[in-house]
Amino acid sequence: MKKAVILLSGGLDSATTLAIAQNDGFTPYGLTFSYGQRHQFEIGASQKIAEACNLTDHIITEIDLRAFGGSALTDDIDVPKDRSESTMGGSIPVTYVPARNTIFLSFALAWAEVLQSNDIFLGVNSMDYSGYPDCRPEYIQSFQAMANLATKAGVDGDQSITIHTPLISMTKGEIIKKGLALGVDYSLTHSCYDPDKAGNACGRCDSCCIRLKGFQEAGTADPINYT
Amino acid sequence: MKKAVILLSGGLDSATTLAIAQNDGFTPYGLTFSYGQRHQFEIGASQKIAEACNLTDHIITEIDLRAFGGSALTDDIDVPKDRSESTMGGSIPVTYVPARNTIFLSFALAWAEVLQSNDIFLGVNSMDYSGYPDCRPEYIQSFQAMANLATKAGVDGDQSITIHTPLISMTKGEIIKKGLALGVDYSLTHSCYDPDKAGNACGRCDSCCIRLKGFQEAGTADPINYT
Repeated sequence: MKKAVILLSGGLDSATTLAIAQNDGFTPYGLTFSYGQRHQFEIGASQKIAEACNLTDHIITEIDLRAFGGSALTDDIDVPKDRSESTMGGSIPVTYVPARNTIFLSFALAWAEVLQSNDIFLGVNSMDYSGYPDCRPEYIQSFQAMANLATKAGVDGDQSITIHTPLISMTKGEIIKKGLALGVDYSLTHSCYDPDKAGNACGRCDSCCIRLKGFQEAGTADPINYT
Repeated sequence: MKKAVILLSGGLDSATTLAIAQNDGFTPYGLTFSYGQRHQFEIGASQKIAEACNLTDHIITEIDLRAFGGSALTDDIDVPKDRSESTMGGSIPVTYVPARNTIFLSFALAWAEVLQSNDIFLGVNSMDYSGYPDCRPEYIQSFQAMANLATKAGVDGDQSITIHTPLISMTKGEIIKKGLALGVDYSLTHSCYDPDKAGNACGRCDSCCIRLKGFQEAGTADPINYT
C-alpha cells in the first residue's frame, strides 16, 4: 500500500478525492488547515470524514492567514450571494484566498517527504469552480515541477512527486455521482462559506450554489441542512 | 517606492538581503516564522534587525513544522558538529527541514499578493550552504514560474512576481563584505542551530562553521558571542 497525503478541507470535493485515493489503493494521510476561515465548521466535517474513512493519521494544523487578510473568507469582507453562473465565471471573486492552495500543497509536500510518500491528492476542479487561479491544470503542473526540485527526491533523482487532481476535469454532478458510487457520505461534508451558528448552509454563496446545482445534475438530494 | 516581502530569519544572510533590498529602493515588509525550530533565538534576532532597519511592518507567524518532524531542527535528532567542508557538500544533512523554503515562500506570496507587491526577497545561497535542495537556482526559478500561475497576477497577466535571491552566487565572505558596506549590524544576527540557553553560538554546527569561515574570508571578526 502506497502512502498518500490528502488535502482534506471537509468539503464535498476533498471527501470524494479521498474516496478515489482509497479506491486506487493508497493509504491516505489526511491534512486539514485551521487557517482563520469564517467557515470553521468545515474542520469538524473533516474530522467526521477522517473517522468514517478510518484514516491512519489526520493532522489538523493551525496557520494564520488572517494576518495577511485580502479575502472574504479571512477578512471582514461580505461573502457574495445569489450570483448567477455567468457572473461567477467573470472574474476572481473576493472569496479567493491569496496563495491558499500553494500554502496547503507546500505543507502536504513537507509531510509527504517525511512519510517517504510520492503522492499528494488535491480536490481542485477547473469546471464548476469559482474562478480561482490556483485551481487550474497549468498551476498544478507547475507546482508539481517545482515540488520535484524542492525536495530530497529532486536531488537524489530516485523519487518523483505526483500531485493527483482526479476531479480537475469533472463537473460537480459527475463528482457527486462518482462519490456516491464509492460510498461517500455527503451528509458529513460542509461546503458553505457563510453558515449560520448551527452550521446550516446558507444556500446562496457561490459554494452552496455550485453544490446545489451539482446535486441537481446528479439527480439526487443534498443530504445537508440549509437555512 | 515599491513594496517587497523579505523573508527574515534573523540570520546573517537574510539581514544582508534586507539591506540590499532597501539599498535597491524597495520598501521592505519582513516575514519571520516561528516554526518549532530549536534555535528560537533567531526570532528575537529578526525583531532586533526589523527595528534597526525601521521596517514598516514585520509579521512573525506561527506554523508547526514539528507536527511533521523529519529534521534535526524540529525533531529529537542531534545537530551534527565539527563536520569538514567536504563532508558538508556530500549529501543532504539532517538539519534539512522538508519543504521549508517552499512553505516560507508560499506565505510570502500570499502577503505579496495582498500588498499588491511583485517582489519577494530570499537570502538563499548556493555557494557556502549545507546542500539543501531548496537553495538551488533551478528551484527558485521553478517556484517563480509556479507563483506566476498561482495568483491573480497569473490570470490578469498585468503583474509578474519576481523572487529575488541576491546572495545566490556569492560566497559567505562576499556576503559579509557586501553587508558591512551597506551598514549591516551583524551583532544583531543569529545563525547557530544549537545555541546554549543564553543564546551563545556553539561554533561547531554547520551553520556556525560556514559563518566563521565567512568572517575569516571577509578579514573581520564575528561580533557575536560563542560558547
